Amino acid sequence: MAPISFEFQAAPVGRARLGRLATPHGVIDTPQFMPVGTQATVKSLTPGDLRAAGTQIILGNAYHLSLRPGHERIAQLGGLHRFMGWNGPILTDSGGFQVFSLAHLGSVDDDGVTFASHLDGSPHRLTPERAVEIQEALGGDIAMAFDQLVDPGRPPADVERALDRTHAWAARCLAARRRPDQALFGIIQGGVDAELRRRSARTIAALPFDGIAIGGLSVGESKAEMAATLDVVAEELSGDRRVRYLMGVGSPADFFVAVERGVDLFDCVLPTRVARNGQVWTDAGRLNLRNARFAADPAPIDPECACEACRNHSRAYLAHLFRAEELLAYRLASLHNVTYTLDLMRRLRAALADGSYASLRKVVTEQYASTGAGSGKPPITDR
Amino acid sequence: MAPISFEFQAAPVGRARLGRLATPHGVIDTPQFMPVGTQATVKSLTPGDLRAAGTQIILGNAYHLSLRPGHERIAQLGGLHRFMGWNGPILTDSGGFQVFSLAHLGSVDDDGVTFASHLDGSPHRLTPERAVEIQEALGGDIAMAFDQLVDPGRPPADVERALDRTHAWAARCLAARRRPDQALFGIIQGGVDAELRRRSARTIAALPFDGIAIGGLSVGESKAEMAATLDVVAEELSGDRRVRYLMGVGSPADFFVAVERGVDLFDCVLPTRVARNGQVWTDAGRLNLRNARFAADPAPIDPECACEACRNHSRAYLAHLFRAEELLAYRLASLHNVTYTLDLMRRLRAALADGSYASLRKVVTEQYASTGAGSGKPPITDR
Repeated sequence: MAPISFEFQAAPVGRARLGRLATPHGVIDTPQFMPVGTQATVKSLTPGDLRAAGTQIILGNAYHLSLRPGHERIAQLGGLHRFMGWNGPILTDSGGFQVFSLAHLGSVDDDGVTFASHLDGSPHRLTPERAVEIQEALGGDIAMAFDQLVDPGRPPADVERALDRTHAWAARCLAARRRPDQALFGIIQGGVDAELRRRSARTIAALPFDGIAIGGLSVGESKAEMAATLDVVAEELSGDRRVRYLMGVGSPADFFVAVERGVDLFDCVLPTRVARNGQVWTDAGRLNLRNARFAADPAPIDPECACEACRNHSRAYLAHLFRAEELLAYRLASLHNVTYTLDLMRRLRAALADGSYASLRKVVTEQYASTGAGSGKPPITDR
Repeated sequence: MAPISFEFQAAPVGRARLGRLATPHGVIDTPQFMPVGTQATVKSLTPGDLRAAGTQIILGNAYHLSLRPGHERIAQLGGLHRFMGWNGPILTDSGGFQVFSLAHLGSVDDDGVTFASHLDGSPHRLTPERAVEIQEALGGDIAMAFDQLVDPGRPPADVERALDRTHAWAARCLAARRRPDQALFGIIQGGVDAELRRRSARTIAALPFDGIAIGGLSVGESKAEMAATLDVVAEELSGDRRVRYLMGVGSPADFFVAVERGVDLFDCVLPTRVARNGQVWTDAGRLNLRNARFAADPAPIDPECACEACRNHSRAYLAHLFRAEELLAYRLASLHNVTYTLDLMRRLRAALADGSYASLRKVVTEQYASTGAGSGKPPITDR
């Protein structure tokens, strides 16, 4: 039996789909957003908070967890679900993104990549087989193939060589899998080059993955380039009934662009990262709680929101907590942004079903066009 | 009508009392511990967490809140209860301790003290009248008199002059009060000098305060000196039926020493401060979660504890969070230590009632004699 199953109906908006993804730890309504728990915690939040916020699936990070506390340690302690006290679905990232964003610390060859730990500089080796082994030890519901990212600004020959490697490594990941209860997703790369993206989509889709991810976007390209690339991939995948996951994308306006192009799953650190900088999301756009105008504002962050921060606290209180650098500031703002994001996905699904999609899209897109979604710069609480 | 009322029965253990303190925002069972919310937040915890931990009353800090966000601001926003979303009882500290612990920034005269803000160096003036005004604006259930602390190692003439000032200021605080719904407690000073303590207890007890606090302890004196001083005060107050509050004391073993000497209320930053350093309290004594032996330990912090950290997470997970400097580490450890402390007070009250006090005292005192209660050094999450 397959570790996951996916059923969807086409929604009458572009290529949008409304689906249900069944995993060993529960069912996920799609389109869906996955809060990011890089180090086995969505920063500042408990599993209880995540459930209260409506979380159906979270993301963990094989690279970080294999270095600390170690995937063997997590396996000894019963796997990642038990280790972090989250019994819902988990997807683990393979580490490809981290390894290559730390590219100055390592070297890549056809077999894999050698890199230095960002924690202590100790040498490590990651190969497709090793990435699968680590993720199987962590025991998430969904694992990701190990891919080679490359700066799209590099010479075409380099970009193409990285793509060929990504495809070869995809097949090696499939050959290396041992756990029948863990799904494995392939990753389409190819930057913003339509021809490379098409080739990558065709190659990855031809392999027996349980789901298809789109990587290498939201890395500095324009919104138009992202949309065009998603169009190319969607055309190439038309007829493919597997679940589709757009990696690293998670601003309110981007969800609409991608859902219309057939994307079912999203993840991004943005909601929690900007929260720790005092930036909260509402249907009136982004508010910066450090702004002087909120210091005496008795209103909640968002009067429509049911999260604990909005139910119990004023903008003035949160503004005070941020100024005083109180830990509760980061927690309440994170809880709000995760709640807002998941609620937006819920509203987006409802709007796809009831025909009100265009008006929801308009409100959210316009507000975030004027305020932006916030800075991706690591906040002071990141190390 | 008096803002608070206190009823108690003598327990058959030394001078211990079992009581109920009724305030405008609720009833408090005594002996009781007050978690400290210096800047209108018990660090990292929500009001919901505090309630789940069994909190009946919290402490706020007039000095900190008057500087940021300002007591006028808090009054505009409906008072401290509403500002921080805590609808239970609040006691506010007058600022005496902070002003004198920052003594190098100020100068004292018979009328009050001039000091520089620890935030921006701006000049401020605090007098007994001003301290009452600030606390009335904050609107806590219980306010504290403004006193002059002095290093007990200073020349006797200095110590005595500070004590005379404290007594004169106590009378001025009483004369300055305007709110009939806010209690005002006097503070006994006098260091570890029996004669000065006796004089101070007599002087403060002669004034129409709603409760009596004992200040100037837990500042470096020995355990024997603290016990002897509490004995002197208890003798002097015998027959006084007002509630008694020992300021700044809050380690597990100290509670027993003080309860036996007639103390009803406690506050201390220790449970949350040591928590943020990775030190958690259990009946097996203090555990340091940063210790290597916990890195693979699947047990909860304390199998007897019902807090969210103990119900859902292992020592190994918390050890990981502390190593990774994740915000959730400080939150879960703080929640545990506050829960443990309040549960210890509950068990202490039950033991006073059912005759099992001696065995509870023995277990806790012995364990903490071997492990200590932890370092009072500010953790990295303090500024």
